[in-house]
Amino acid sequence: MSNHFTLLSSDNNARRGILHLPQGDVQTPVFMPVGTVGAMKALHHDRLEELNYQLILANTYHLYLRPGLDLLKNMGGLPAFSTWSKNFLTDSGGFQFFSLSKFAKFTEEGVKFSSHIDGSKHFFTPEMAVDAQNIIGSHIKMVLDVCTPPDISEKKAYQAHLLTLDWAKRCKQQWELTGSNGLLFGIIQGNFYKDLRRLSADSLAELNLPGYAIGGLSVGEEKHVFKEFVHFTTPLLPHNKPRYVMGIGTPDYILQAVEAGVDMFDCVYPTRVARNGAAMTFDGLLSLKNERFMKDSSPIDPECDCSACRRYSKSYLRHLIKAKEINALTLLTDHNLTFMKRFMIQVRQSIEDKTFLTYKQQFLHQYYNSSL
Amino acid sequence: MSNHFTLLSSDNNARRGILHLPQGDVQTPVFMPVGTVGAMKALHHDRLEELNYQLILANTYHLYLRPGLDLLKNMGGLPAFSTWSKNFLTDSGGFQFFSLSKFAKFTEEGVKFSSHIDGSKHFFTPEMAVDAQNIIGSHIKMVLDVCTPPDISEKKAYQAHLLTLDWAKRCKQQWELTGSNGLLFGIIQGNFYKDLRRLSADSLAELNLPGYAIGGLSVGEEKHVFKEFVHFTTPLLPHNKPRYVMGIGTPDYILQAVEAGVDMFDCVYPTRVARNGAAMTFDGLLSLKNERFMKDSSPIDPECDCSACRRYSKSYLRHLIKAKEINALTLLTDHNLTFMKRFMIQVRQSIEDKTFLTYKQQFLHQYYNSSL
Repeated sequence: MSNHFTLLSSDNNARRGILHLPQGDVQTPVFMPVGTVGAMKALHHDRLEELNYQLILANTYHLYLRPGLDLLKNMGGLPAFSTWSKNFLTDSGGFQFFSLSKFAKFTEEGVKFSSHIDGSKHFFTPEMAVDAQNIIGSHIKMVLDVCTPPDISEKKAYQAHLLTLDWAKRCKQQWELTGSNGLLFGIIQGNFYKDLRRLSADSLAELNLPGYAIGGLSVGEEKHVFKEFVHFTTPLLPHNKPRYVMGIGTPDYILQAVEAGVDMFDCVYPTRVARNGAAMTFDGLLSLKNERFMKDSSPIDPECDCSACRRYSKSYLRHLIKAKEINALTLLTDHNLTFMKRFMIQVRQSIEDKTFLTYKQQFLHQYYNSSL
Repeated sequence: MSNHFTLLSSDNNARRGILHLPQGDVQTPVFMPVGTVGAMKALHHDRLEELNYQLILANTYHLYLRPGLDLLKNMGGLPAFSTWSKNFLTDSGGFQFFSLSKFAKFTEEGVKFSSHIDGSKHFFTPEMAVDAQNIIGSHIKMVLDVCTPPDISEKKAYQAHLLTLDWAKRCKQQWELTGSNGLLFGIIQGNFYKDLRRLSADSLAELNLPGYAIGGLSVGEEKHVFKEFVHFTTPLLPHNKPRYVMGIGTPDYILQAVEAGVDMFDCVYPTRVARNGAAMTFDGLLSLKNERFMKDSSPIDPECDCSACRRYSKSYLRHLIKAKEINALTLLTDHNLTFMKRFMIQVRQSIEDKTFLTYKQQFLHQYYNSSL
């Protein structure tokens, strides 16, 4: 057991733990909502604190471009600048260079890219990824990695793995040189080749980093492939360290990951679908634009205490969505992050109770086969 | 003194009063923020209640089109539907037919118009304006009027006055026929012709309606013309009834109106400029996009207790605006409506203290000549 992670209990592969971070403990499994530029979209910090979120994501790539590292340094880092007093995890930019790849070119030394905002040219190295995250002041930092799409050859996937491994070493060196601030997590790649996943996991484990993420999942592969690879890869990661799957946020993917032994996950999903008018409930995802809610005077969920459910009917919320009112975005974002909080409390409780698999089956049945 | 309006004190022409409405008393002079479709843009009812707003606007034209009167009737009216438990004032649609006039054609009988949303054809009469406001369930209803631009001939302005007067009579008749729910206010027109303003005021006064608004101001005329006409027209209105100038919300216009003896005003200004990144302060309007705020670690106003000032620096707010974050809209809307609350408390106090003119001069000097 490392001193920043305590495993409390387990239920088969599912794990219940505590991540000890500079700005407070985090109960795992944990869902981390994404506040790309140091702000949750359509929800204030005050409400995130009320919901007891202890760890949120921010994005090195976006913060590097705007507001820029000079300003962040000047303002004492992102925690002071944004006034978020709990913990930040920053991704390194690796995923953005992948998803915005028309703007990026990888070399051994680093990544050349053009800003998606103004087209300005930049060059980013693994060392710079660590330096940037030091300036940001995040409490969990990610190595710069090379993420790949689900359709590349094993040879190309191997090359991407080699570069990811080399960059992880350079990141670790830079992190240690600059004072080992926060926790640095490695990222497992290897595409959808099991030998490469194993090789990536084993090679990175040798670096003895404080935590490990599985990257390159949920990048467009089919659901059964995700399931196969999360169950295959997770047990390859060090048992005594936090395990993180990047970019998942739907309940079914989260439950697969927890079953496989994953402790952490992040996604824009709950906040993004909220802005599209969809409410997450234990009876499934409700698209409130739907005409069947036009005269529905009941709240989304009478047992939810979010700002939408405490006060408003589905009919009124639908009206706000149709009228393109900003309040529709803020109310549904509050609702979905309140739902995610309640969902994760249940997940953690079921692991403590050693009933996780039963919980998972019941949840999935109710969520995806609901008649609502 | 009518039983729905109490004049408490005055300072020259400026008046301090209480408007007694079904959902609670309203201290005047009052600024009424605009929640067009039964929702304040980018601010929840919870916060409006905390700020002690007792009377907000909604818009008959917009509600008639969306969500529609059938649904509102089904849901028990706008107060129940929206859960706003204080008072609503609804404008009649007259101003929208004017400002969206490319979609509207006036006849003696009523207005033919096309929806700005889907182009569908509609016909609206004074009787329908009252019926619609009865279904909406607003506590102050406005007659359907004919608003005119500042550049028309006296003949056309006279015709518009005649139609406005005829429609006001029809509205009053329909309001009485349907139970005299809430208060029905007349609207003075007459364009920028003083004889017509006087004629309109005198003719409408004969209808003995519960309150009177001055319409057709702040429609594009120069500031000195507004000032001249608000000071000319207001004393023509019944002294013992609430007086309302429609569509003003900048501090200088509000102070002119209060000086002239106006009790009520509404405008989208504070909420609209918020969404454009501008914060109202006693030192003037701050455009937070401005580069001079880039490293400004102080709040907009340290004495303001809104959700923006309690927590965030101008630098961070500027970052949210530049990054087009929804939180920029919600935080600045909260700030500007908090400012308007504080401003109106000061205005009312200065009238009670018989120091309104001094207050007005000091305020205007600080607001418009600030070195900030």
